[in-house]
Amino acid sequence: MKGTAPTAAPVLPIRGRFRPLGLGDVRITGGFWAERQSVNAGASLAHIEHWLEREGWIRNFDLAAGGDIAGERRGREFSDSEVYKFLEAMAWEIGRTGDAGLESRFRAVVWRVAAAQERDGYLNTKFGRPGQQPRWSDLEWGHELYCVGHLLQAAVARARTRPGADDGLLEVARRAADNVCETFGPDGIDGVCGHAGIETALVEFARVTEDERYLGQAALFVDRRGHGRLSDVEYGREYFQDELPVRQATVLRGHAVRANYLAAGAADVAVELKDASLLDAVRTQWTNTVTRRTYITGGQGSRHQDEAFGGDWVLPPDRAYSETCAGIGSVMLAWRLLLADGDSRYADLIERTLFNVVSTSPAADGRSFFYTNTLHRRELGTEPDADRPSIRAAASLRAPWFEVSCCPTNVARTLASLTAYVATSDDEGLQLHQYVPGTVAHRRPDGRVLSVTVATEYPHDGEIRVRVDSDDEHPWTLSLRVPGWAAEGATVTVGGETRPVAPGYFTAQRTWRRGDEVCLSLPLAPRFTYPDTRIDAVRGCVAVERGPVVLAVESVDVPGLDTVDELRVDTSRPPALVDGRVTVRFRRVRPAEHDWPYLTAPAPVVDEDPVEVPLVEYHAWANRGPSTMRVWLPQ
Amino acid sequence: MKGTAPTAAPVLPIRGRFRPLGLGDVRITGGFWAERQSVNAGASLAHIEHWLEREGWIRNFDLAAGGDIAGERRGREFSDSEVYKFLEAMAWEIGRTGDAGLESRFRAVVWRVAAAQERDGYLNTKFGRPGQQPRWSDLEWGHELYCVGHLLQAAVARARTRPGADDGLLEVARRAADNVCETFGPDGIDGVCGHAGIETALVEFARVTEDERYLGQAALFVDRRGHGRLSDVEYGREYFQDELPVRQATVLRGHAVRANYLAAGAADVAVELKDASLLDAVRTQWTNTVTRRTYITGGQGSRHQDEAFGGDWVLPPDRAYSETCAGIGSVMLAWRLLLADGDSRYADLIERTLFNVVSTSPAADGRSFFYTNTLHRRELGTEPDADRPSIRAAASLRAPWFEVSCCPTNVARTLASLTAYVATSDDEGLQLHQYVPGTVAHRRPDGRVLSVTVATEYPHDGEIRVRVDSDDEHPWTLSLRVPGWAAEGATVTVGGETRPVAPGYFTAQRTWRRGDEVCLSLPLAPRFTYPDTRIDAVRGCVAVERGPVVLAVESVDVPGLDTVDELRVDTSRPPALVDGRVTVRFRRVRPAEHDWPYLTAPAPVVDEDPVEVPLVEYHAWANRGPSTMRVWLPQ
Repeated sequence: MKGTAPTAAPVLPIRGRFRPLGLGDVRITGGFWAERQSVNAGASLAHIEHWLEREGWIRNFDLAAGGDIAGERRGREFSDSEVYKFLEAMAWEIGRTGDAGLESRFRAVVWRVAAAQERDGYLNTKFGRPGQQPRWSDLEWGHELYCVGHLLQAAVARARTRPGADDGLLEVARRAADNVCETFGPDGIDGVCGHAGIETALVEFARVTEDERYLGQAALFVDRRGHGRLSDVEYGREYFQDELPVRQATVLRGHAVRANYLAAGAADVAVELKDASLLDAVRTQWTNTVTRRTYITGGQGSRHQDEAFGGDWVLPPDRAYSETCAGIGSVMLAWRLLLADGDSRYADLIERTLFNVVSTSPAADGRSFFYTNTLHRRELGTEPDADRPSIRAAASLRAPWFEVSCCPTNVARTLASLTAYVATSDDEGLQLHQYVPGTVAHRRPDGRVLSVTVATEYPHDGEIRVRVDSDDEHPWTLSLRVPGWAAEGATVTVGGETRPVAPGYFTAQRTWRRGDEVCLSLPLAPRFTYPDTRIDAVRGCVAVERGPVVLAVESVDVPGLDTVDELRVDTSRPPALVDGRVTVRFRRVRPAEHDWPYLTAPAPVVDEDPVEVPLVEYHAWANRGPSTMRVWLPQ
Repeated sequence: MKGTAPTAAPVLPIRGRFRPLGLGDVRITGGFWAERQSVNAGASLAHIEHWLEREGWIRNFDLAAGGDIAGERRGREFSDSEVYKFLEAMAWEIGRTGDAGLESRFRAVVWRVAAAQERDGYLNTKFGRPGQQPRWSDLEWGHELYCVGHLLQAAVARARTRPGADDGLLEVARRAADNVCETFGPDGIDGVCGHAGIETALVEFARVTEDERYLGQAALFVDRRGHGRLSDVEYGREYFQDELPVRQATVLRGHAVRANYLAAGAADVAVELKDASLLDAVRTQWTNTVTRRTYITGGQGSRHQDEAFGGDWVLPPDRAYSETCAGIGSVMLAWRLLLADGDSRYADLIERTLFNVVSTSPAADGRSFFYTNTLHRRELGTEPDADRPSIRAAASLRAPWFEVSCCPTNVARTLASLTAYVATSDDEGLQLHQYVPGTVAHRRPDGRVLSVTVATEYPHDGEIRVRVDSDDEHPWTLSLRVPGWAAEGATVTVGGETRPVAPGYFTAQRTWRRGDEVCLSLPLAPRFTYPDTRIDAVRGCVAVERGPVVLAVESVDVPGLDTVDELRVDTSRPPALVDGRVTVRFRRVRPAEHDWPYLTAPAPVVDEDPVEVPLVEYHAWANRGPSTMRVWLPQ
C-alpha cells in the first residue's frame, strides 16, 4: 500500500488474508447505518462534548497543565480515556465528512490535552503530580496504560485521516508511547495494566509510525500477562486475564471488555510477528467464546458483579450484562481475525453484534445510551436523571451519561469509523462483508481501480444488488458474504443465472464490465431460533430473528399489559410479517397465586384467546418510554 | 414469666401468640440436629477461635486496649462482630451443656473485649483512636452500630444462660448501648447504620435489662431508615433499605442479610410497642418475599454483585447467592412472626431453611463452611486454600475461613441456640414446631409442669411419637405442626384413633396423663416439585424433595461423568427409595456441537439407556470432594 494515501481505517495489518479498505474507499449512502452515522455526527458528538465539559473530564487536563489538579480533579481514574475516545471519534468523523466545525473543536481539545503532557512524555491527569498518587503505583486499577492506549488510537485515527496535520496529536502520542516503552521496556517495570488496550494501540502506532519499538513493547505486554504480576483482587486474577498466559488460554474469561481487548492485541502482535501459535490460541479462544459464552445478540459478559464472562453456557437473559463496550471489543477482535483468516464466521459475528449490541446502545436521538444490554426486562424502568450521571449498570432505560462513561464514546468512535468494516480487498479482488447502500471504489497498488455500487434496503429487505462501476481488462473476483443464518434459501443471480449459495463467501471471478450486476438474495422471512440445550437459563424458550436482527416483545406493543412475562409464544405458526412488522401469536397465561412457589404438580395456567403481537427490533427497544421486554419467549 | 429463672432463648417478646421455651425446657437428645450441635461444640467453636486468633481479630481488642492499634489493626471494618458472635455462640453452648472449659475461654475473650472499651462506653477497634477514622464518620460502611448489636446479643445470651455471672459482659454491653443511645438519641446524630442489626439487639437488650430506653432507640432506628439519610452508593440506597420506610415497603429488597435483620428488628419493635400497622407491614414483606423471592431451599438473595435479593421471580440456580447469613436472618424474622402470629407457615420456612441452608453451610467435620449456597455447580470446584481466608463468594467448596467471615460464627451461634426454636407454650399448652428426638418440659407460671418426650428419626422417617410425661389434673392442649409440604397423607393417631390432618397445627386438648401418646405420621415418600412458571431460570425443570429436605444430583454419584448437566430426569416414574437413598431415573443426552449455539430447530439430543442415580441431600453435597451438582433437574 506504500506510495498511496494512507488507508483511513483503524486496523492495518502488515499481512493477512484480506486487506482493509478505508473511509476513502467506501461510502455508506443510506439505510440503517447511514442514519446512525448521521445521528452520531449530528447529535452524539456534541452530547459527549457537553458531558465531558460538564463533568470536568476535559478540564482535568487544564488543571493538570496548571499544576493545580490535586484535590480538584474530577471523574474516575480512567476519565482521560473518554476524552481520547472522543478525539478518536472526531478524527474519524472529520475523515469521513471533512466537517470544518468539528476540525476546530478537535484541535481545541488536542491543544488542552497536549498542554498537560509532562516533559518526559508521561500523560495522565490522575497520577504523579504533587498530592496525587505516584505514577504507575496502581497497575491493577489505575488504568494509566489503558489511557495511553486510547490516546494512541486517537492519534492513529488522525494520522490516517489527516496525514501531516499540524495539530500535534501524533507527537503527543509518540512522546507518550516513548515514555511507556522507556518505563515498561525489557529493563523497566516488569508489569502490565489491569485493563488491556495498550497492546492493540501500540501495534497500530507501530504501523502508523513504522517504528517497531512499539510493536516490541506490545508483544512484551502480551507475554507478560497471565503470570500473576498483578495483585490478586476480589474477583480473582481472571478478572484482568492475569491468571493464565494468553498462549495457554482456551476461552475468553474475566472482564469481558478487557478480555476482548487483550485478545485483539494478541492477534495484532501475532500477525505482525508471524507468531502462528499465538494467533492459533486467539482463534481457539474466539471459537469457544462464540459457541459457549455469547448471547444471541452477540453480546458478551453475563455477570454484573465483575462485568465478566460467566462459565460456559451461563447466559441468563435477565440481568444480562452484555456491556456495549464488550460488544465493541468483540467486533475489534473478530475484525482482526477476519483480516487474518478470511473466515466469514468472523464477519457474521460482527454483523450480529453491530445490529444487536452496538446499535442498541444509543437512543434514536443519539443522546442517551445503554451501558448494559439486557435481554429481559421484568419491571417497567424509570427514566434516568437527565441532569446527573447514572450508575453504569443501574439505569433501566438509556441514560445520558454514566459515572463510568466508556460506552458513549466507544459507540461514537465505532460509528464514525464503521465504513472501514464494510469491505476489504485482496490480490484477487474485493470482498463485501456488510451490506449497506453505497459504493466501494478501491485503487489497487498496481493502479487498477475496482469499484461497485451496492443497492439494498438490508436488513429490511434481502435483495442486495451489486453493480460493477469499473471497466477492467483483467478478471477479478467479487466476493459476497453469505451469512451463517442464511443456511437455507440464499441465492445469487449473476449473468442472468440464479443459483443457491451456502454460508461463506460467494465468489465470482470475471472480467467485470461497468454495469455488470450480481444480486444476492438473502432469506429474510422471520424465523424462530432455539437455544442449545445447555443454556439452562432459556430452556423452553425461543427467540425470533429476521436476518441478522434479533427481535423482542415489548410491553408497549401489548395493549393492557405491563408485563410481557405472561405471554407464551405459539410456535406452531411461524412468525409473520404484518404491515412490515414481525408478528407472533401468543397466548396469555395467568399464573395462580400460591403461598409457596414450588408445587407438587406443574402449575395450572389459564390459556386465553391468542393475541397477535408485533415484535420490536431489539436494538430499538425502550425508545418509547418505560416497558418490559423479552428476547427469549417461553413456549 | 417473672419470678422464675430467665428463659434461655434468644428472643423473648413481651406478648404474642406463642411464648418461647428455652434451653432449660427443651433437650435435643439425638438425630440430625444433635449431631450438628455436637460437631458445632466439639469442632466448630475451636476452629472459629483458632481463626479469630490467627487473623488477629481478637488481638485487635488487645491493640486497642494498648492504644497502639492504628496501622496494626487487621481484618475488615466489621471483624469485631465475629468476636461477639463467637461469644454469643459460646454463651449458648455453655448454657446448653455447662462446658467448664468453654466457660474459661469465654471469660478470657470477654476480658480482652472489655479492656478495649473506652471510658464513655464506645467500643470498636476500627474507629476513633489516634490515626483512625473518627467515630461514626462512615455510617454507610463502618458497621459500628452493627458491631454493637452483636455485642448486645452476646450479652443477652449470657444474661439468659448465666444470670448474674461476674464476667462483666452485661456491663460492657450496657455501657456500649448507653453510648449508642446518647449518641443517636432524639437529640443526637440523626442517622442509622448501613447494616441493620442493632435494632433487634436493642429490643432484646431492653427485654433483658427491663430498660425501655433501648427499645425507644430501636424504634427510632427503625423509623429513621428509608428516608435517604445514608449516602447513595453504587448499588443504590435499596442496598441498605434506605430508599423506602419500613412501613411502606411491601417486600424485602437489597442486601438480603440487612433486609432480614431490619425486618426482624421492625417486628420486635412492633410487638413491644403494639404497633399493629408496623407488624402488618413486616408480615406483608415476609409473605411477598417467601412467595416470590425465595429459593426452594429457603435461601434468599439472588445476586452476587450486592448480595441482594433479585426482583420477583429472579431466582437463578447457578450462581445463586443464598448467603448462609441471609438464611439465618430469615429464620430470625420468621421466628419472630411465628411467636407473634402463631401461623405454621413461619415454622415451615424455618424448618426448610434450617435443613437446606443453615445445615448446608458447615462441612460434616464442622471445620469449613459455605458462604453462599448455590443450587447448581457446573464445574468441578477446587479445594480452597486451607491456610488463608477465602474470598467470601469465590470458593467452590466449603472454605475454612473468609476475609468476610460472618457465616461461620453465625452458624455457630444458631446451632448452639437451636433448641430454643423447637417448641413454644401458650396459656393452653405446648406447641411443637420442629421435630427432634428429645424432651420438652415446661413449668408454667402457675406451677403446672407440662412435659413430653418426642421419639422420631425425622427427617428420615415420618413417624413422630410424642409421649406425655406429666400428669396433670387439668386439660391442656398439645399442638403439633403439620408442615405445608405434607398436604396429602399426613395422619395423626391419638387415643388409638387415626385420622388425616391438614397443614397447620393439629391440636388436641385433653386431660393428659403420663404415658399418653400422640403419633404424627408425615408422608416422607420422595416427590417431584415443580416451580411456579414465572421463575424463568428453572423452566422445564423439577426438583426432588423428601419431607423438608431438598435433594440434588451430584456428579460423584454418577460414575464416569464429571458434569451432571447432561442428565435429563424421567418424571414418568416417581423418585424411589433404594437402600435408604432417594433415587431418580435419568437419561443422558449428548448435545451436538455447533459453530453457534442458536439453532433453527430444537437441538437434536441423543437419548441413551436410562440410568438410576441416587441423589444426595442438598445440605450434604460437596462433602466428598470436588463435584458438579444440580437441584433443578431438566426434564
